[in-house]
Amino acid sequence: MENRPNRGRVVLVGGGPGDPGLITVAGLEAVRSADVVVTDRLAPLGVLHGLGCEIVDVGKIPRGRTTPQEEINRILVAHAAAGKRVVRLKGGDTFVFGRGGEELEACVAAGIPVDVIPGVTSAIAGPALAGIPVTHRGLSQGFTVVSGHVPPGDPRSTLDWAALARSGTDLVLLMAVATLPAITATLITEGLDAATPAATVADATLPTQRVVRADLATIAERIAEACIASPAITVIGKVAGFDPGSETTGV
Amino acid sequence: MENRPNRGRVVLVGGGPGDPGLITVAGLEAVRSADVVVTDRLAPLGVLHGLGCEIVDVGKIPRGRTTPQEEINRILVAHAAAGKRVVRLKGGDTFVFGRGGEELEACVAAGIPVDVIPGVTSAIAGPALAGIPVTHRGLSQGFTVVSGHVPPGDPRSTLDWAALARSGTDLVLLMAVATLPAITATLITEGLDAATPAATVADATLPTQRVVRADLATIAERIAEACIASPAITVIGKVAGFDPGSETTGV
Repeated sequence: MENRPNRGRVVLVGGGPGDPGLITVAGLEAVRSADVVVTDRLAPLGVLHGLGCEIVDVGKIPRGRTTPQEEINRILVAHAAAGKRVVRLKGGDTFVFGRGGEELEACVAAGIPVDVIPGVTSAIAGPALAGIPVTHRGLSQGFTVVSGHVPPGDPRSTLDWAALARSGTDLVLLMAVATLPAITATLITEGLDAATPAATVADATLPTQRVVRADLATIAERIAEACIASPAITVIGKVAGFDPGSETTGV
Repeated sequence: MENRPNRGRVVLVGGGPGDPGLITVAGLEAVRSADVVVTDRLAPLGVLHGLGCEIVDVGKIPRGRTTPQEEINRILVAHAAAGKRVVRLKGGDTFVFGRGGEELEACVAAGIPVDVIPGVTSAIAGPALAGIPVTHRGLSQGFTVVSGHVPPGDPRSTLDWAALARSGTDLVLLMAVATLPAITATLITEGLDAATPAATVADATLPTQRVVRADLATIAERIAEACIASPAITVIGKVAGFDPGSETTGV
């Protein structure tokens, strides 16, 4: 390895929801000038085609399906400490359930300079490319993005689902395919109208994108019938019923 | 005007929070191949430098400070109906309080093909570039983005601020400089701890960016003392106190 400690740094790049056109101009420039790109399963891998740099796929490490975050942090710091320009390429935005804050802390603790280049989050772009605006005049004055990784009632949950049911915001659920039956049942128990529109977008922005529309009472059943798997985004609220009268097209 | 009705279309482009590097690759390509760009005050005007196309600035129309949305819709439809490739360039993401849904409806109603290219929303990127991740393991399992345009208690409000105070999500407030005293007082009355960290980011991603950090009880006073004006984003929640120990840099 070269030893150019003054040049080594880490750039945390949000790569957008998957379509290579949805990375930012600055993000693409960072990737193209990187010595090392540390990437994983949901990053927009299309932007890496033809690059001469080293690519570390932390979704495909020997002896494990996923690399522990501490190991990813160690990889970022080690390459930068060796003088490399390192890009950490994530899907979506690195600070929306992307653990960018932890990577930022690890680099700072190690004295490594860090840049942050925000990305288009799937939480908003996924619904958008299914024709669903997360806010719409007359339908919504706000939206809430939550992880469904920890279901309602789980002692690890810090969310108040009764409050979420009553907040008046649209709900956008990430990582909630497996927990959707529990989440929708809880929201109905807590008073959210079972007829509230709901929609699930799978593989948002990719050629394999699929959209399932239903209501709060039936969306979990409908996506199970449709064999929807992660990654998928579910929107619950009046905007999920938004229909301008025609299909839109994306990038 | 040329008459090429088969070619006319509208592309709704989210231009990101202001820095020209934070538009998407697809968004920039759309702008560069446009016949007409319809833009306004918060769009990333840097990306328009040197373009040969017609630029309609709907923030600077004669006889008014802002152009009514209906007039913007009419402009988009008229140019596209005349065979032009029209880009509607907005700051942030067009579907996050950007009225993109209304423009989409207007185009569809007029039979005009519409594409949507999502953008980096200031609601997430603004805090990010101030070093604040809207989600962080151990601090937050979700976040809520709301408009402060209509204050708590206003009959036009459809938000339940008592529920927002209790939801367990971080709050991201847009268009809330004038209403911040009312919002913070309401949140405290409804039970949110007055010592909850809070931060306001003004002119996010631009060279004029400023950040004010305080707590829920004092943030409104602090930003008034600092003469913070719109556009600004306020984050309330544990993540607003996130401090990795060093300043990060943006794009």
